[in-house]
Amino acid sequence: MKLGFIGTGVMGNAIASNLQKAGYELWVYNRTKAKTDNLVAAGATWCATPQEVTEKTDIIFTMLGFPQDVEQVYYDSQGIFQADVQNKILVDMTTSKPQLAQRIFQTGQKKGAQVLDAPVSGGDIGAKNGTLTIMVGGQQATFDKLQPLFQAVSSKAQLFGPAGAGQNTKMANQIMIAGTMTGMSEMLVYAKAAGLDLNKVLETVGAGSAANWSLTNYGPRILKGDYNPGFFSKHFLKDLRIALDTAAEMKIDLPATKQAKELYEKLVDDKKLGDLGTQALVKLWW
Amino acid sequence: MKLGFIGTGVMGNAIASNLQKAGYELWVYNRTKAKTDNLVAAGATWCATPQEVTEKTDIIFTMLGFPQDVEQVYYDSQGIFQADVQNKILVDMTTSKPQLAQRIFQTGQKKGAQVLDAPVSGGDIGAKNGTLTIMVGGQQATFDKLQPLFQAVSSKAQLFGPAGAGQNTKMANQIMIAGTMTGMSEMLVYAKAAGLDLNKVLETVGAGSAANWSLTNYGPRILKGDYNPGFFSKHFLKDLRIALDTAAEMKIDLPATKQAKELYEKLVDDKKLGDLGTQALVKLWW
Repeated sequence: MKLGFIGTGVMGNAIASNLQKAGYELWVYNRTKAKTDNLVAAGATWCATPQEVTEKTDIIFTMLGFPQDVEQVYYDSQGIFQADVQNKILVDMTTSKPQLAQRIFQTGQKKGAQVLDAPVSGGDIGAKNGTLTIMVGGQQATFDKLQPLFQAVSSKAQLFGPAGAGQNTKMANQIMIAGTMTGMSEMLVYAKAAGLDLNKVLETVGAGSAANWSLTNYGPRILKGDYNPGFFSKHFLKDLRIALDTAAEMKIDLPATKQAKELYEKLVDDKKLGDLGTQALVKLWW
Repeated sequence: MKLGFIGTGVMGNAIASNLQKAGYELWVYNRTKAKTDNLVAAGATWCATPQEVTEKTDIIFTMLGFPQDVEQVYYDSQGIFQADVQNKILVDMTTSKPQLAQRIFQTGQKKGAQVLDAPVSGGDIGAKNGTLTIMVGGQQATFDKLQPLFQAVSSKAQLFGPAGAGQNTKMANQIMIAGTMTGMSEMLVYAKAAGLDLNKVLETVGAGSAANWSLTNYGPRILKGDYNPGFFSKHFLKDLRIALDTAAEMKIDLPATKQAKELYEKLVDDKKLGDLGTQALVKLWW
């Protein structure tokens, strides 16, 4: 089985590398060629375009930045759908729009390809350690075929429904995190203004009914002034925009998520701090 | 040592009962007398006013509903400060305004009494089981004297600073919870609108970087349609109002907490659902 991998940034590179380690042969493409060097050194074949990757392989993974990147890689000239995709499997791991996932699925159906949307959570550490969670949308038979590959790069892959369901599950996850990130930031801002010992506050607030992953993992980093990205603020803002656009299409209003998006817009667009981690939200106050 | 207990609702009654079980003699007052019946049956002495409780005891606990109740019980005619409080210790366990806690402390200072603010977290179950967390503000020496009593009713009591610091720590805790509650509600609303299996979503979202206590504890109840109060929405709204009033006094803006307060206002004031638990927030959509 020949695997293609398009998009070898931090996340994609780590996932592709784990596929290599599991013994699979890879054909790779990335806009910045240098980011495929380690994979090529380990035996992967460089291709000049997404189309070429698709022509040479059976199962093609994409792990890109923004929905517009996904759209280009699939639909542009020299894109995936310029190749004959008959009987191939296309797996988009980018966190992207549910509606775009459905469109890619439908294009695939017409051309005889199987398609999954398969965004992940777990960050760069999860990608390196192969402990990602993969949220999948698409058909059960396709999902079943991919299981050995998902097992090589994640600790859990689950099918949530038809095309787009993986993206929607990821959006649900990000909406939850919008709450823990804004709550944590405003909690720390309040506690600091009130003159409290922030280490003691973190310990106490984190031990009871306010406990959450963001507080446990980002709280201590914030107190150390460590705003290095576990997850880029600019990518989280992208996710919140997708979530809110999709919510609007579904005619539901999510005011707290909207408020979170507006705060991250201030951080990313106004303060130009999108390359810091999501925990940098407190910098709007401090 | 003679103990007074004023305010024997769900929380106060359970705490007072644990003090009795630990062997302390109690004098009690409650607006609705019947709510002291179990304590009187177990040996407590009923008093007709807060003033009388204070006159007959050495250490007086208050556990009331709203800041205005606290103000009345301390400052009204027949209130605590109508008694001679010289050398007595006053402990307000109500979740109330930090500024009111400071005012009571100062009044106590003038009259020769020691004062602690000591709001709790852990809910009715924590109160019954003696596993509350107590967040204390006041003087170290007073806190040290109270340690045996706090140990009888909680699993952890911690001094956070001078008068008001206990209330401010509790407010920080509630600001964090505002994030987990709004995030969880909007996450479920999104996931349901997207047609996802909510049990699977809870499991997946609750296992990764979106994990939090509210999701683990309230998520399954919401899916069962169980909106019984672990914590009343009307009390959470009170807390958010205190937090935002205090934040405004400190000249800090907390937009996500403000958004949460507006949502709970819709639930409590507009929909009149304040007697449901905080997890009923999803009823704004469903």
